[in-house]
Amino acid sequence: MDILNVELGTRSYPILIGSGLLGETEVFRRYLRAREVLIVSNTSVAPLYLSTLVASLSGRRRVEVILPDGEVHKTLANAARVFDVLIANRLARDCAVVALGGGVVGDLAGFAAACYQRGVDFVQLPTTLLAQVDSAVGGKTAVNHPGGKNLIGAFHQPILVVSDTATLATLPPRELRAGLAEVVKYGLIADATLFDWLEGHVERLLAGDPETLTHIIRRSCEIKAAIVGRDEREQGERALLNLGHTFGHAIESATAYREWLHGEAVGAGLVMAAAMSVACGSLPAADAERVRRLIARVGLPTRIDSVSAAAALDHMKIDKKALGGRLRLVLLRRIGEAFLSADYPPDVLNSTLEAHFGGGR
Amino acid sequence: MDILNVELGTRSYPILIGSGLLGETEVFRRYLRAREVLIVSNTSVAPLYLSTLVASLSGRRRVEVILPDGEVHKTLANAARVFDVLIANRLARDCAVVALGGGVVGDLAGFAAACYQRGVDFVQLPTTLLAQVDSAVGGKTAVNHPGGKNLIGAFHQPILVVSDTATLATLPPRELRAGLAEVVKYGLIADATLFDWLEGHVERLLAGDPETLTHIIRRSCEIKAAIVGRDEREQGERALLNLGHTFGHAIESATAYREWLHGEAVGAGLVMAAAMSVACGSLPAADAERVRRLIARVGLPTRIDSVSAAAALDHMKIDKKALGGRLRLVLLRRIGEAFLSADYPPDVLNSTLEAHFGGGR
Repeated sequence: MDILNVELGTRSYPILIGSGLLGETEVFRRYLRAREVLIVSNTSVAPLYLSTLVASLSGRRRVEVILPDGEVHKTLANAARVFDVLIANRLARDCAVVALGGGVVGDLAGFAAACYQRGVDFVQLPTTLLAQVDSAVGGKTAVNHPGGKNLIGAFHQPILVVSDTATLATLPPRELRAGLAEVVKYGLIADATLFDWLEGHVERLLAGDPETLTHIIRRSCEIKAAIVGRDEREQGERALLNLGHTFGHAIESATAYREWLHGEAVGAGLVMAAAMSVACGSLPAADAERVRRLIARVGLPTRIDSVSAAAALDHMKIDKKALGGRLRLVLLRRIGEAFLSADYPPDVLNSTLEAHFGGGR
Repeated sequence: MDILNVELGTRSYPILIGSGLLGETEVFRRYLRAREVLIVSNTSVAPLYLSTLVASLSGRRRVEVILPDGEVHKTLANAARVFDVLIANRLARDCAVVALGGGVVGDLAGFAAACYQRGVDFVQLPTTLLAQVDSAVGGKTAVNHPGGKNLIGAFHQPILVVSDTATLATLPPRELRAGLAEVVKYGLIADATLFDWLEGHVERLLAGDPETLTHIIRRSCEIKAAIVGRDEREQGERALLNLGHTFGHAIESATAYREWLHGEAVGAGLVMAAAMSVACGSLPAADAERVRRLIARVGLPTRIDSVSAAAALDHMKIDKKALGGRLRLVLLRRIGEAFLSADYPPDVLNSTLEAHFGGGR
């Protein structure tokens, strides 16, 4: 078992990474004090891992909410369902909300934990690659709104993250590919060596090789934990973690969260951010081509034909990064270094969108 | 104009107290940077003060949400209505949510500000005595749930509180009395001199004398700001501000938030907390009698006949102070000193409830 720490003073917490951790009673006995827990999971994950988790939590009072699977269900209405269950069962302020699933379950359960009684303990048990490398770490919680992704949410750090790498064996290949988009992102913003390594290990990763996957989970968590530790509330550096995400969120909300997984939209978004960086003169064209090729080799989309450039722009404008009417974007200076920009030429954004959405070339 | 400061490091903010402040453009020019504001108010307050506020905010982009008046409307559904308006109008992350009204408007608007884009600026413009002395200060925001009061919420400090004491001239007498309950509370937990002073000034306060009201607003805010500054997240001392509130919340939720104003329920709750303190042997009976007489002279209820003791107990158990199944209550040691207790004899609580709710003597 690997243990990383997210250093946030009194809100610091450990990330445990290892195979079979969900079944280890000792892990929960040691790291989770709450005597009452609400487990939030979904209809895909619960049949696979809920009974294992329940056995590991024996001796505690347990309540469960099993949501339908998918980003389209990450809604305020489903958060309200979690509140209803917490309150109907009278869970006290010293309870814990435990998320067993991917990013949707984690974001929604975390938001419910943030708001219930103005904040109760929260535990992340991510079962997808995307959640293990990204969304389970860092305390961003949210639900979607028809008008935009993650527009209703809270910063609420978990007290514990347990990434059981054995759960990746049952992960659908499409979900595995989606998770790799966030790993490519870490390489692009912070670690050229990781990017190079990914280029050499795509096939092993796609084959689900446990050791290779564990390596990228650990490295991704290290990078994210360090950034979050320095900038918990996204006053500065943390915004770089949004590379590709403003494009990605527009793709998701323009398709009503039904067509593309979050990681797939981010994959296409990384290609767009790289292309735009070239158009702005900040990135060599050869580097953008490396990004496009790696995303394509991972099996992620590099353009989105079902959405028009105009619709994409419209959805980008409501994104949270649209500060004071001016859309801030994360761009690349080189592979391994990103920066935040609001002073790109406006037509560069338009031409990037036209080149990568339907109606473009 | 009086200026008090709530000292919370980077989250410190001023409380401005004075007559006619809502009409002073200069106040808002100086203390509010946002160029886009969402004003939340209700159907009672908006006709009286919205146009004055709008004039003071001239030059900014404004959007408004006018809610129906009353605690029964402090719901997640109405918070969702605020989200819808924020998003439909694409207010950016650097906007401000401005609450113009009493505690219901402030709590709900503050919760919406806490969650929108994971937190935007929030301004409190309290127009009731209760909000000016208590709910507008300290950053507790929430909505109610049918199962209990304030069960869904967030700690989210305002960046500015402006208490225009001239608004109290239009306050219904019932609301004025309700606000005084919280002032009596401050005397009981922290300031015996204030309690004595209140005993000597009840008639003037009920007559709406501006100078007398301004005195208690300033003193209440001083006490609350000091406590919140030492214990923002209610890890300890801040819990004393809940004196009478566990009883009060039970009264409110047992009557579906329709029968009693929050301050009225708190008034009865203070009488119950004092009576229970006597039964526990911590408070002289003569002091509890002073509490009961002052509450009665203010015109607040000292017992609640429409709710049974059993129903009240049931609703108390879901209150946020019910830690790990054991209900923690704030009790009195003397007038001016309160303490938190979970080790009172159980039948003392039952007999207190039976004596003050329907079905009791």
